[in-house]
Amino acid sequence: MKSFTIEEINAFVNGEVVGSTTHKITGLEQIQNATENQATFIGNRKFAKLWPESKASLAIVNDNLDIEPGENRVLIKVKNADLTMAQLLESFTPEAPHFETDIHPAANIDATAKIGNGSRVGAGAYIGKNVVIGDNVTIYPNVTILDDTTIGAHTTIWSGTIIRERSVIGSHCIFHNNVSIGADGFGYRPSEDGRGLVKIPHIGNVVIGNGVEIGANSCVDRGKFSSTILGDGCKIDNLVQIAHNCVLGRSCIMAGNSGLAGSVTLGDGVVIGGSASIKDHTTIHSGATVGAGSGVMNDVEAGKTVLGYPAVDSREMLKQWVALRKLAR
Amino acid sequence: MKSFTIEEINAFVNGEVVGSTTHKITGLEQIQNATENQATFIGNRKFAKLWPESKASLAIVNDNLDIEPGENRVLIKVKNADLTMAQLLESFTPEAPHFETDIHPAANIDATAKIGNGSRVGAGAYIGKNVVIGDNVTIYPNVTILDDTTIGAHTTIWSGTIIRERSVIGSHCIFHNNVSIGADGFGYRPSEDGRGLVKIPHIGNVVIGNGVEIGANSCVDRGKFSSTILGDGCKIDNLVQIAHNCVLGRSCIMAGNSGLAGSVTLGDGVVIGGSASIKDHTTIHSGATVGAGSGVMNDVEAGKTVLGYPAVDSREMLKQWVALRKLAR
Amino acid sequence: MKSFTIEEINAFVNGEVVGSTTHKITGLEQIQNATENQATFIGNRKFAKLWPESKASLAIVNDNLDIEPGENRVLIKVKNADLTMAQLLESFTPEAPHFETDIHPAANIDATAKIGNGSRVGAGAYIGKNVVIGDNVTIYPNVTILDDTTIGAHTTIWSGTIIRERSVIGSHCIFHNNVSIGADGFGYRPSEDGRGLVKIPHIGNVVIGNGVEIGANSCVDRGKFSSTILGDGCKIDNLVQIAHNCVLGRSCIMAGNSGLAGSVTLGDGVVIGGSASIKDHTTIHSGATVGAGSGVMNDVEAGKTVLGYPAVDSREMLKQWVALRKLAR
Repeated sequence: MKSFTIEEINAFVNGEVVGSTTHKITGLEQIQNATENQATFIGNRKFAKLWPESKASLAIVNDNLDIEPGENRVLIKVKNADLTMAQLLESFTPEAPHFETDIHPAANIDATAKIGNGSRVGAGAYIGKNVVIGDNVTIYPNVTILDDTTIGAHTTIWSGTIIRERSVIGSHCIFHNNVSIGADGFGYRPSEDGRGLVKIPHIGNVVIGNGVEIGANSCVDRGKFSSTILGDGCKIDNLVQIAHNCVLGRSCIMAGNSGLAGSVTLGDGVVIGGSASIKDHTTIHSGATVGAGSGVMNDVEAGKTVLGYPAVDSREMLKQWVALRKLAR
Repeated sequence: MKSFTIEEINAFVNGEVVGSTTHKITGLEQIQNATENQATFIGNRKFAKLWPESKASLAIVNDNLDIEPGENRVLIKVKNADLTMAQLLESFTPEAPHFETDIHPAANIDATAKIGNGSRVGAGAYIGKNVVIGDNVTIYPNVTILDDTTIGAHTTIWSGTIIRERSVIGSHCIFHNNVSIGADGFGYRPSEDGRGLVKIPHIGNVVIGNGVEIGANSCVDRGKFSSTILGDGCKIDNLVQIAHNCVLGRSCIMAGNSGLAGSVTLGDGVVIGGSASIKDHTTIHSGATVGAGSGVMNDVEAGKTVLGYPAVDSREMLKQWVALRKLAR
Repeated sequence: MKSFTIEEINAFVNGEVVGSTTHKITGLEQIQNATENQATFIGNRKFAKLWPESKASLAIVNDNLDIEPGENRVLIKVKNADLTMAQLLESFTPEAPHFETDIHPAANIDATAKIGNGSRVGAGAYIGKNVVIGDNVTIYPNVTILDDTTIGAHTTIWSGTIIRERSVIGSHCIFHNNVSIGADGFGYRPSEDGRGLVKIPHIGNVVIGNGVEIGANSCVDRGKFSSTILGDGCKIDNLVQIAHNCVLGRSCIMAGNSGLAGSVTLGDGVVIGGSASIKDHTTIHSGATVGAGSGVMNDVEAGKTVLGYPAVDSREMLKQWVALRKLAR
């Protein structure tokens, strides 16, 4: 377990120390649950009121709050306690799961695959023909990477994730558990006898930029032809569906259970709320936001916020909700 | 195949036998599809009318129904045929998948892991450093359990499921296929140049009580700090999202495709309908019910039923739906 | 990389060649992105206008469009360019991932399992007791197939997919990554002390017809008793939930993130839109369509289209939406 003095912590967060304590700090906790070897965070008055009863020995506090440390306890005053907390979490991050050897003897790596310096591959992982893995990549046990895929440096792939053939993955990406990259898109044509459906081959691939994070059990399908593309810095939550030939710009956010149908385009910095879904061939322009649970059936202008099902401008939808509530009375 | 006489079945269900049959019973089936070696269930008049045409040799019947067995056929009258059926299914449960040896030679188990008595580990399963597995645990092939996780006695983990480091899992739990436990929560802060997002480390873990069942391809993310917690007896269906720092009380039910955003609190016995989603930092108090497809944006009082998007009291929402239908005419 | 002359392509698509080119064709691309060794498709006037600026050397064109090939470029005129494209994709399909040997030495196959002629099993795949796999089946690395399952000829199972015991899978099926087939259904009864829930055993299985495709991270639960059934030719997208005892007819389509609760019946050719969900014990009759995002709470007649939450006839729902929009003004 990591352990820090108040001075060591303040060397990192660079605030104003008020009070002193004999305790060392070994972890971070919410104010109600913290114990005497833990630090907590106070970003508003509601939490400030809980400080006298808290057992934490250290609180990182917004410097505009009027609050006293108490006996054998310390405050560190900073501009933005929430932001400081996010930074401080890095110091307390425990060690990642252990690799007995860099390349586990029970990993199955094709002879033609190339693994970069400092990269590690866990037990039961499969690396196919002509796969190229950059430096300092971490591949946890029971990951599957199929032929001709390339993965950039410093990327981490957690257990259970499958990356299908010919995918191109950037550097500094994180793919969580049971992610599916590069499965065939969902496309059929009527059979000639009109009685069934014939599969349309999906011969494209998936191209993912740098610094992209994809949550557990999410899916990114390969293009019908050309590519399904996620731009640098996109952050995708759990159980998200990104269909064939979608193109996401830089730093888009998609929250849990949301989905894009085929050939949807997102500009840069688009935010899709949880459980929202977007119709195929729609464009959501840069900086637009789609509210949670919305169903988007038309293009959305840059910077606009839409809401509801079918989604319209959020102020318009709030008016509709109010009007309906009144009508029902 | 298991086979029972009428007397053997009645020794278990303890009802009143009416009629007799020369057939043995080898399985259970719906009344329309049953064959002469099968038993069926009649819990209401609609099913009672189908009995003369059914080929089943045995029906478990609610004792308030007026119905005759017919030739070479038997009724067993009980108070509650549906409940009896649920109990009877246990007698007909076929054997679970076979383990050639308790610990398959192709399992990859770190030397520091401890496996309890009577526990079994399938081929391709990975058990990391310092993992502690209780007695009579069943780990099917291709499961991954990362470092420092503990798993209580009599728990069953089905193939494809991933449990990340430092998880604490109770006894008598069942995790179905491709479940993801302990992936990082979805949290970012703006980068200093304002042009991107920086990952907030998630240094907490997941703590799951006893008797918890989690459906296929569902996700429970680890806490940012402290824990994401599922209380004893929670039952989670398939494709459900439980985000970082959610806290579920005892015996909560979440149906398929539903989701909780970050830091949602559920009391005891809360029921979340299918495809419903709950906003972050919301509390749903004990005994409350959220209807299927609802989007909950505010706290819900104990025992209340809410419905719709945005969710309100269910009677109020039904009034809104009626009012809108009238308005459209 | 595959490479074709114009003549070779036209031998396949059987259209009218206009113009000539010195380029060979190595791939297909959208008109805006195509390069001089690629073919593109022009199915309407909007795309026809982009042809002069496109770098593609070949366009497959609807024969009712008035358009000239230009210098060193070719048009092939056909009745339906979109349909021809779907067919042409087959010619350009690259090789599937490589198998070093038909049965990888790191596959774990029970001695009692039978593998048909020409079938291949990848590294880390597990095949349980008494499993019967037909001819020309492809099982990619890290698939798990549990005891007593049968799989028909020419079926493909992609990495990460789990098929539980006693499943019956047809021929020419495709299961994408991380699919879960045959997990227990979601069913409980109150415990005798009224304080918790007792699991109802699910002793049935899953039966899947021929030519069925199931998308990544989708789930099909086993029957409580008897079977959950998917008819021939059903096409299921990613992240779809099909609960215990559902019965789907022939050639049903379910788009991404949609879900069926327990014991739902779909007739033949039913279409379920993305993110739609269907209440338990509901019947959607043949040829009916459920719009994206809908919540269906009642049976739907054959051939009807329903929409909205709660779902009603789609024209009625469109009227409700219009009425509400007017009311809010």
